[in-house]
Amino acid sequence: MSTKLDDFRNYREKMNNRISQIDHLGIKRFLNLDSAAYKEGMLDSKVKELLGLTASTVLRCNDCIDYHLIQCIDAGWKDEELYDALNVALVVGGSIVIPHLRHAVETIDNLRAERKPLEV
Amino acid sequence: MSTKLDDFRNYREKMNNRISQIDHLGIKRFLNLDSAAYKEGMLDSKVKELLGLTASTVLRCNDCIDYHLIQCIDAGWKDEELYDALNVALVVGGSIVIPHLRHAVETIDNLRAERKPLEV
Amino acid sequence: MSTKLDDFRNYREKMNNRISQIDHLGIKRFLNLDSAAYKEGMLDSKVKELLGLTASTVLRCNDCIDYHLIQCIDAGWKDEELYDALNVALVVGGSIVIPHLRHAVETIDNLRAERKPLEV
Amino acid sequence: MSTKLDDFRNYREKMNNRISQIDHLGIKRFLNLDSAAYKEGMLDSKVKELLGLTASTVLRCNDCIDYHLIQCIDAGWKDEELYDALNVALVVGGSIVIPHLRHAVETIDNLRAERKPLEV
Amino acid sequence: MSTKLDDFRNYREKMNNRISQIDHLGIKRFLNLDSAAYKEGMLDSKVKELLGLTASTVLRCNDCIDYHLIQCIDAGWKDEELYDALNVALVVGGSIVIPHLRHAVETIDNLRAERKPLEV
Amino acid sequence: MSTKLDDFRNYREKMNNRISQIDHLGIKRFLNLDSAAYKEGMLDSKVKELLGLTASTVLRCNDCIDYHLIQCIDAGWKDEELYDALNVALVVGGSIVIPHLRHAVETIDNLRAERKPLEV
Repeated sequence: MSTKLDDFRNYREKMNNRISQIDHLGIKRFLNLDSAAYKEGMLDSKVKELLGLTASTVLRCNDCIDYHLIQCIDAGWKDEELYDALNVALVVGGSIVIPHLRHAVETIDNLRAERKPLEV
Repeated sequence: MSTKLDDFRNYREKMNNRISQIDHLGIKRFLNLDSAAYKEGMLDSKVKELLGLTASTVLRCNDCIDYHLIQCIDAGWKDEELYDALNVALVVGGSIVIPHLRHAVETIDNLRAERKPLEV
Repeated sequence: MSTKLDDFRNYREKMNNRISQIDHLGIKRFLNLDSAAYKEGMLDSKVKELLGLTASTVLRCNDCIDYHLIQCIDAGWKDEELYDALNVALVVGGSIVIPHLRHAVETIDNLRAERKPLEV
Repeated sequence: MSTKLDDFRNYREKMNNRISQIDHLGIKRFLNLDSAAYKEGMLDSKVKELLGLTASTVLRCNDCIDYHLIQCIDAGWKDEELYDALNVALVVGGSIVIPHLRHAVETIDNLRAERKPLEV
Repeated sequence: MSTKLDDFRNYREKMNNRISQIDHLGIKRFLNLDSAAYKEGMLDSKVKELLGLTASTVLRCNDCIDYHLIQCIDAGWKDEELYDALNVALVVGGSIVIPHLRHAVETIDNLRAERKPLEV
Repeated sequence: MSTKLDDFRNYREKMNNRISQIDHLGIKRFLNLDSAAYKEGMLDSKVKELLGLTASTVLRCNDCIDYHLIQCIDAGWKDEELYDALNVALVVGGSIVIPHLRHAVETIDNLRAERKPLEV
């Protein structure tokens, strides 16, 4: 069954392709700069993805939360560590963040379910 | 010579005392919860302070940036690592963050100057 | 027929249960503090819910608007009073609030329809 | 086939009618003031609509983006010009704007598709 | 001794006069609409000013907080009631609101000091 | 006599030099991308600066407003045209923008005063 997360990934891929077709130099450079910001640097990628998740949560952007959760889980963060980062975002951003906390927890569950081998 | 950072610390201390005098239960509990969010947990305090810095920067709050920079430097983050976190905040938050990047870099310099033994 | 409001309530309940399962102390304490903020105090609950509605509207969070509208109507605010509060939010927050005004008016209508005895 | 854009237009019309029924003087005056802001003045309407689009994009409101894209295309802005305005919004507002850039590009495509005579 | 509050009031009056000189119809109508939003209506002015204070606090605008605190105290709200409203704003808006809570408490104290007859 | 605008320019130049010394590749590339966004493209620079001003105003950043007002006046926009753009920002962003409208009008006046030959 398709999840909200699948919808996000399909739409994201389709529109990223369309944006790449548009071929606006400034937009392309911005998107490259965005990817580069999370690459290994003085801080390692794993920490940077957690920064990206927290920033996305306090700014209340579900698509950005989903994107960084995918990266965070690929980078090896455990659920309990992600909850601890989301708690920082909740305290900084206040109760207005709660709907995005719900969304984030649902996405974590969906991501884990995808990785689990199907039971026979 | 007194810096902007001293002004922030003095004002913060004075008003925190005043707020504590006011003795509003909800406000006191919130302030405790705020401190607790950065304590050792599934994530260590050092990482959480960096999350707090990034969240404060994308939300564009200079006082919050100063507070978390003090904590980050106490926790042992190096300047180059802080710049790397600020870069994530800049890319997430856009050019509207630039004035706060200026402020953050100034505060890092002031904090380092305070820690440097006076030259004879 | 199920409304957007039903979807919100079901999703909210499901994910609140899941968040309670996660059992993160900081998050649980925050959620308690959030509930406590609207309890009878120096201001009565009824006024506080209207503050919550206005804050949610200027911060442009539909789920938060729905939640506080449910509470406001339970607390006895009349539609015309709610419109007057939404007008304050509109003037403070500007035209960017208009889509959330539409949402709020729809939710008020849905809430009233639920309370109306079915016509025979 | 109905698009997200059709849904937006239908919902917008339905709820604007409902809001007009409510007949709150302050809300009505605000809505008039909003329309008036984009009328021919010291700046022409065409430029003002582009300002409205950029403001809506950095404030990350998809409904407002759709509304101003409809007006911008009616006013004669070409796609490449709209992309250039969206690039300004992207740089000012940062990567948090990217999901709204995707939405804006999709809406531009939908609006152009509507205007294209059906191929035989 | 002149306070931050005096500076705000003087600057506000000077620039409001200058803006009125500019004589832009849209701006003038907006400023009238803004005043009108807090006038006696379905809700009384006293409650509306508290809504304005809460909205200003979650949106983190010190000048707006000062303005609404002046109005709130004129309208008869007591300090403990104002703290209770600020607590709602703190919980909704999160720790990023704390610097504005400090500012608000300072302004309340300054406003009360002004009203107190000088001791002989 | 030094104005707030002089303070902004001096601080901006000092800290931009310091940031350039820090030599963080991502930050440097972001600052270049930011400058590039306002260069002649499908839209001309003059229009783009007005977009930058409007975006800065609705996002309520005084330093960004000052920067774009300098660029707008250099690009040839007249005061009445700037007021018309600020009016769009006011309607989109609401009364929370008013303190920044005051700031913008003061900066326009300061910029015009600088350009006026001294009277003998």
